[in-house]
Amino acid sequence: MLRTHNLGELKLKDISKEVTLCGWVQKKRDLGGMTFLDLRDRYGITQLAFNMDSDTELCIKARKLGREYVIQISGKVIERSSKNLQISTGEIEIEVSQLTILNESKTPPFTIEDKSDGGDELRMKYRYLDIRRNPIKENLLLRNKVSLETRKYLDSQGFLEVETPYLIKSTPEGARDFIVPSRMNEKQFYALPQSPQTFKQLLMVGGIDKYYQIVRCFRDEDLRSDRQPEFTQIDCEMSFIDQEDILNTFEGLTKYLLDKIKGVTITDFPRMTYDDAMRIYGSDKPDIRFDMKFIDLTNQVKGNSFEVFDRSEIVIAIRVPGCANYTRKQLDKLVEFVKTPQVGAKGLVYCKYNEDGTSKSSIDKFFDEKARLAWSEKSGCEDGDLLLMMSGEIEKTRKSLGVLRLKLAEDLSLRNPEDFAPLWVLDFPLLEWDEDSQRYHAMHHPFTSPKKEDISKIATDPASVRANAYDLVLNGNEIGGGSIRIHDKELQKLMFKHLGFTDKEAQEQFGFLMEAFEYGAPPHGGVAFGFDRLCAILGGEESIRDFIAFPKNNSGRDIMIDSPSNIDQKQLDELNIKLK
Amino acid sequence: MLRTHNLGELKLKDISKEVTLCGWVQKKRDLGGMTFLDLRDRYGITQLAFNMDSDTELCIKARKLGREYVIQISGKVIERSSKNLQISTGEIEIEVSQLTILNESKTPPFTIEDKSDGGDELRMKYRYLDIRRNPIKENLLLRNKVSLETRKYLDSQGFLEVETPYLIKSTPEGARDFIVPSRMNEKQFYALPQSPQTFKQLLMVGGIDKYYQIVRCFRDEDLRSDRQPEFTQIDCEMSFIDQEDILNTFEGLTKYLLDKIKGVTITDFPRMTYDDAMRIYGSDKPDIRFDMKFIDLTNQVKGNSFEVFDRSEIVIAIRVPGCANYTRKQLDKLVEFVKTPQVGAKGLVYCKYNEDGTSKSSIDKFFDEKARLAWSEKSGCEDGDLLLMMSGEIEKTRKSLGVLRLKLAEDLSLRNPEDFAPLWVLDFPLLEWDEDSQRYHAMHHPFTSPKKEDISKIATDPASVRANAYDLVLNGNEIGGGSIRIHDKELQKLMFKHLGFTDKEAQEQFGFLMEAFEYGAPPHGGVAFGFDRLCAILGGEESIRDFIAFPKNNSGRDIMIDSPSNIDQKQLDELNIKLK
Repeated sequence: MLRTHNLGELKLKDISKEVTLCGWVQKKRDLGGMTFLDLRDRYGITQLAFNMDSDTELCIKARKLGREYVIQISGKVIERSSKNLQISTGEIEIEVSQLTILNESKTPPFTIEDKSDGGDELRMKYRYLDIRRNPIKENLLLRNKVSLETRKYLDSQGFLEVETPYLIKSTPEGARDFIVPSRMNEKQFYALPQSPQTFKQLLMVGGIDKYYQIVRCFRDEDLRSDRQPEFTQIDCEMSFIDQEDILNTFEGLTKYLLDKIKGVTITDFPRMTYDDAMRIYGSDKPDIRFDMKFIDLTNQVKGNSFEVFDRSEIVIAIRVPGCANYTRKQLDKLVEFVKTPQVGAKGLVYCKYNEDGTSKSSIDKFFDEKARLAWSEKSGCEDGDLLLMMSGEIEKTRKSLGVLRLKLAEDLSLRNPEDFAPLWVLDFPLLEWDEDSQRYHAMHHPFTSPKKEDISKIATDPASVRANAYDLVLNGNEIGGGSIRIHDKELQKLMFKHLGFTDKEAQEQFGFLMEAFEYGAPPHGGVAFGFDRLCAILGGEESIRDFIAFPKNNSGRDIMIDSPSNIDQKQLDELNIKLK
Repeated sequence: MLRTHNLGELKLKDISKEVTLCGWVQKKRDLGGMTFLDLRDRYGITQLAFNMDSDTELCIKARKLGREYVIQISGKVIERSSKNLQISTGEIEIEVSQLTILNESKTPPFTIEDKSDGGDELRMKYRYLDIRRNPIKENLLLRNKVSLETRKYLDSQGFLEVETPYLIKSTPEGARDFIVPSRMNEKQFYALPQSPQTFKQLLMVGGIDKYYQIVRCFRDEDLRSDRQPEFTQIDCEMSFIDQEDILNTFEGLTKYLLDKIKGVTITDFPRMTYDDAMRIYGSDKPDIRFDMKFIDLTNQVKGNSFEVFDRSEIVIAIRVPGCANYTRKQLDKLVEFVKTPQVGAKGLVYCKYNEDGTSKSSIDKFFDEKARLAWSEKSGCEDGDLLLMMSGEIEKTRKSLGVLRLKLAEDLSLRNPEDFAPLWVLDFPLLEWDEDSQRYHAMHHPFTSPKKEDISKIATDPASVRANAYDLVLNGNEIGGGSIRIHDKELQKLMFKHLGFTDKEAQEQFGFLMEAFEYGAPPHGGVAFGFDRLCAILGGEESIRDFIAFPKNNSGRDIMIDSPSNIDQKQLDELNIKLK
């Protein structure tokens, strides 16, 4: 070892020890006869002291060190005169007797501090420097811990980690695949897995009744701001279970992680159907850390000559507590907000219930005080509250009001990252209509089993068929989702038919799975957690990017290694492909 | 849960319990009034009993069940009259009162038994059935355990698991990359990593001083019998260490695994230089579970008018203990073997030292008894031993004799899979000459640091430069290998130059790494273990294929899912590529 200790461990008990340390120069202070230097590594910071009088040459050498130089020093642990109890080594310093420069450093392009002056692009380009900063390093430590604890829990429950292949087969259903040309199999291609879905089902057919894997997945999608083309999943599957068993098992995992990582104890998770979530929160992943449930005022407000409401399918409202004192300017800003494409609404109606007992709405022309009192009764508004209403088509209006609800919670600081409010959303629809292809798509994936009692409606009223599918929502984010699978070949065939697959297509793409179902497939189901998102939420942040060691930007580029890049003609020739 | 217990856990203590069980029908015996059925799951086998007299209908239903049907039964645990103490549940059986068929099964294409009648191709095609067989299932259980124990050990040593990206950049150095066309970055390609080498080095630059990852790697090589296009690696890297620290740390891991997995305690691992390994065993991964070291007889046998020896650079021999009684036929077979392309030798000389004290060689025409006695003295041959000699060019002859040595050990059952003999091989050459490209290639990879004392020879005598590179060998297999890396930009540049990179090529491919070296790279080094191979050896087998859940065949095909496969024209169009 080039060091006897790391830079986070020396304490008063080590006084007088001769030690050798290595690390990066964080900062230096030259104070007349003394030079103090903060040396940094993964574990902390240790202060080095150089004395101009007792060792002039060494002190001069130390004064020439630049930021981020890598050095090795030897010296004696001594007690500090002015202690810093903010850091673990703050009671000691090192009286340095030897100094070796292990490597020099150019001045880094941004400061290696908790708050850096580097912009996103610069930090991505020099990610190896960014990782030296505490916040990013701490994220990687957290991620490692979440991964270890996840394995510990699942192992204790009898789950077996099985690695499934990364070079698999392209299936056009769902998102776009990344594909990999095969050199040995001319003009054929592998695909990278969007998830190990079919393989975990085959493991169930193979009798591995509890499977998990922390596994990379790939989707060639146009990247929204917080998506990555490769992401990590905690992927799980169980046999001989029903939905209740899955919910209990993974509620158990989530409780365990919240306890181990955050020290938070949460009793049973609430459950809600998809229909209720959409009706009450306008979202299939409601943030229930705060209230502001939707209130349906349709019956109260229709038929009152206010044409906007009269021609609406639905009029819904949220009660914003204590915000009756919003100024005109603040209200105008909310109206502006709901008109942005992100929300897509036409307008917003408000009603203030003032502290003095009076009320005032933006549609007083059409509704008198009696009407306003009826609303407050229905919505539970009290003096000082603000009521915000939106109207229009049912689905669109709910979604818009859901977005407004989140924005208000953000404004009112109701989304505390140290609060954790999990929620199961159940009974998702089996199918959703796709405007582009003018056909139904599987909402979850084509292997999800419909609810038995709804199967008969699949031909006549496909949109109403519910699936044995569930999502685990945490603080307004879907952190996990899954379903009970189809294990019967005939039902699987029926599903493919309703999803618009010809027999030939189904056979080509999933023939192996349907064949497997002929050899004794057990009832099974599973779940997958978005691991990057889970880590971000446990780390108290919304964005996943800084919980990934080497993320890609919104164009799918790794700007540090400058990838993707051009390829030698020779490589293309060997693969029998040409650029267009 | 569809079951109250699994099929490996019911014991005498459970007598009289009402239980519900699920599993696959393993076999059935109809004995007049009774039907006995073995029900199987991942955990074991439980015997079910159906009584024709007490429940005729149920018994008839049971008699109709086929092999591998999936059933659920309820019944009472009773004591067996004829116990089977070979299995964990062998003292009890279930008096069945209810039977539900969860899924039917066609007759499987091969028997689901420890020894199956299925050939390799058939077992691969129906891998999900193969996994139901104990030997394959046990391999997957072992693999899971090795992975968990590896993480436990490395975590206890302060290593941090960091996930590195799979979509990286193609670097033509080394083996062939699998490449992935980018849709968003027109005419550009990602590559799948052959290893996370550069990323782990960047993590060191980033201050993560102990990194590991159990990670998939990809090489588009022509597959020899026991290679896979995707394989798993235990990948590790450390900073502020020297070679000795790495050897100790990973010797520690290997000892820990041998103890935890096999209950085998091994004290310090022997070490040997690459030169010695080649000289003594003709291999850089010698199997030292048995002796048969090479004996150099060149000085003894040259200049004795035996032209074959006289024109040889080297004459070397191995002593085969107790094999003087080999028949003419056995010896002829060995001669035949060394002439196969696998060995590539021209012939083999033998000398028998008989039990009665006489000796006889195949070249008695040229060498008398005195000569034979001199050989026995030099080689340590005793009465009853067989001496086998080969001659020719130094390197080729050593390799050939090394192959013969292994074959003999195999024949003599000296390669006991339950014996474990690890060995460090050190001081590998830095470079090796490549005939095809007529230039030197990095033997390990271009980031390996040369030994300081040898750097001066890099221009004048490149072949003699040794590297700070090491392999961990276990039972004749390289299970791990690594090196101390270059952390100095100038030295790295020099290496690229000697590997025939132009400045532009070096910049394009590894510019990001050389730039990183300018910002305070610490001294570092690491190792990577072949995880599939490690599991196979711990499982007592030579082939890795049955330690991978879903392996590919020798053409890189997954014959179960029939991949790689053709791709929609639309997908190719989106990626801006054409088939040639």
